[in-house]
This record gives sequence, C-alpha cells and structure tokens, in this order.
Amino acid sequence: MSRPTIEFWYEFASTYSYPAAMRIEALASEAGVEVAWRPLLLGPLFNEQQGLTDSPFNAFPVKGQYMWRDMERVCEAEGVAFERPSQFPRNGLLAARLAIAGLEEGWTPRFSRLVYQANFVHDQDIASAEVLAPLVDQAGGHADAAVAAASSDAVKAQLKDHVTQAKARGVFGAPSFITADGELFWGNDRLEHALEWALRHHKTREIA
Amino acid sequence: MSRPTIEFWYEFASTYSYPAAMRIEALASEAGVEVAWRPLLLGPLFNEQQGLTDSPFNAFPVKGQYMWRDMERVCEAEGVAFERPSQFPRNGLLAARLAIAGLEEGWTPRFSRLVYQANFVHDQDIASAEVLAPLVDQAGGHADAAVAAASSDAVKAQLKDHVTQAKARGVFGAPSFITADGELFWGNDRLEHALEWALRHHKTREIA
Repeated sequence: MSRPTIEFWYEFASTYSYPAAMRIEALASEAGVEVAWRPLLLGPLFNEQQGLTDSPFNAFPVKGQYMWRDMERVCEAEGVAFERPSQFPRNGLLAARLAIAGLEEGWTPRFSRLVYQANFVHDQDIASAEVLAPLVDQAGGHADAAVAAASSDAVKAQLKDHVTQAKARGVFGAPSFITADGELFWGNDRLEHALEWALRHHKTREIA
Repeated sequence: MSRPTIEFWYEFASTYSYPAAMRIEALASEAGVEVAWRPLLLGPLFNEQQGLTDSPFNAFPVKGQYMWRDMERVCEAEGVAFERPSQFPRNGLLAARLAIAGLEEGWTPRFSRLVYQANFVHDQDIASAEVLAPLVDQAGGHADAAVAAASSDAVKAQLKDHVTQAKARGVFGAPSFITADGELFWGNDRLEHALEWALRHHKTREIA
C-alpha cells in the first residue's frame, strides 16, 4: 500500500507559511503522510487575482495589524520563536530557486525552515545570497553548486511552473496544502484538516 | 467573581459567521463565558478599508471558489446543514436592525440562528420583511413590534454605532470575537482560541 502524500505550497515572504513549515514534517510523519515541498512566489498570483502590487497585509493595513498580532499568538501557542521583521515582505525569489535546487538532494525542508527562521526570528535579509549560502551548507547541501543551480534555466523554469500549477489549481495564498485528489486547504490552521483528508481519501482510493 | 464575556461581531450576509452563530452559545456556555451578540454591517468596512463595493468573495473569484468549497467542509465537520444560496451576498440590513431590536428582550441569539438557516440552508431572501417577521415570532419576539422598532431612530443609530465601534477596534471581517481586554480574533476557526483567551485573562484580572 502506497503512502498518502500532501503538497505543501509555500512562499518565503509569507508569514503564516513560517509556522506551517516548522511543524508540517512532524505532523505528517505522525500521520504517515509524505510531504512534497512546493516553493512558489505569491506576487504573480496577488497581482493577477487581486490586482495587488504589494502584500495584502500592506495594501490593507487593518488586516496587516491583525496579522502581526495573530502571528505572535499563533507562534507562541505552537512554541516557535517569532520576531516581527524590520522589512516586509522580503523578496523570496532566490530562496525559492535554492529550495527547488535542493529538492533532488533532499535538503529543501531543512533549508526552508532555516530561511524562515532567518526572516522571522533573526530579521535577516533573505533576498541576499550572503545570508542564504550558509543556510544551504547548514541544511546539508553545497552552497556554491546550489547558488549556480539557482540561476540555471532549469530551476528558473521549474519555479515558473510551480506558479503556473498553483494558479491552475486554485491557489491564492500561502501556505496551501493540496491532497492527491486535488482538495485545496488554505492557511496554517488548515494543516491538520488537510492531513486528515489526505489519510481518509487515500484509504478510500486504495480500497476502491 | 464575575463571568468573562466575549463579544461576537457578525454580519448576516457573512458565510463563516453562520457556523460561528450556530455553535458559539454551546461552546461559550461550556467554558463559562457570556456572549454579547453584536450584529454589524461589513459593507462600510470593506469599502473604507479595501475599496470594495461587493463581497471580497465576489470581487476575487478565486477566493470565492475556495470559500464555497471550504464552507461545505466546515459545515459538514461541524454538523450544520449548508446549501450554497442562489444569491450572495444577501442584504443583511433589516435582519441586523431586528437583531438589535431583540437584544433587550433576549431573542437575538435564537433569531440570528434562524436568519442564518433561512439564508444558508433554505435559500430564502433575508432582506425581506416577509421572510424575517415569522422568524422573530419563532425566536420568542413580537414581529409587529420588532419590525416597527427596526425602523426607529434608536435602532438605526445603534447599528451605526456598532459599525463605528467595530472600525475603531480593528474589525475587518466577520465573524470576529473581542475579549474584555480588547483582544481581537477573526474567523470561525478562531472561536475556541477567543474563548480560551477570555477565560485565561479574566482570571488574571480577577486575581490582580
């Protein structure tokens, strides 16, 4: 019997993607679900779907004010450190390309968690190669090779393809979780529901 | 020792306010928390804060498509009936004024639940006095008196005041929950957190 899988769509600039990234592997492993990490960029989606050229949390400050307070509560409840960064959103393009470069070697999950901590705990500029390169090494990759791969046509094309796929499947924010039967769940607080759905419907399919 | 209180800010057109309205009294009663029902209109907030003249779920159809699917899942999980209405959003102005008219006599919670069921189960036009009047009676009020009160200056002013208060306290959507110490929680899925917060901080204040 194959294991159920869940796709984890995330953007490095996205605040609520951070707690999701920190806890998804532990929860999924406990549930017996595999996680496919799917870095993407939200900018093109926000622009196309909502006409925005900035984070909705900056475009609509009342929602932004709530989000920062809510993030403090959520991170405290989930036991992950959190400091509001001095710059928001930070550009996640290079980090997303590096995360894609690491998929084959398997260091993407660890690297992604380190990038989120750099942004949302240590207030570091995750747009910068100087910040990111050591995190690749720390995650078990090779910084020089990864930085080179990140600017290759193949990796650039794969990130574009992630954005295209996300659009086609109804994604409009992050984190988003998609199960094998195409069910979409949006938001860190839907992670448990998505895992439960993945398990339940996987069983149904295996029996049928 | 006084009982902790939570304010429940809701709009009759709001989809996610429906499951919150159906379950808040049972959950709050179990927790020993009192609920202050606070009907409001979201239109003025959406317009002022986000420049919208329609529900965000209509203005941004990708989010709307997700919301309708998510509502099906949420209502199924919470055991409340749900049918996507043929018209969305429906105008909640008269229902909100009636709900305010019922606050003193105490039939507002029951009336509000009936209005939500009319809209989101029976696909009835809750903008219409013909639909709403029997629900006032069913909830324990007097339809004729309530409909008259709903068009009084006092009730109109109180609904306007609710909108003003909501804006001043950072509300940008519904359902929203506000605890006595001013903590704001947004969304049906934050109801449990809001109750837990209300309890915890009430105890702290009583001791201090």
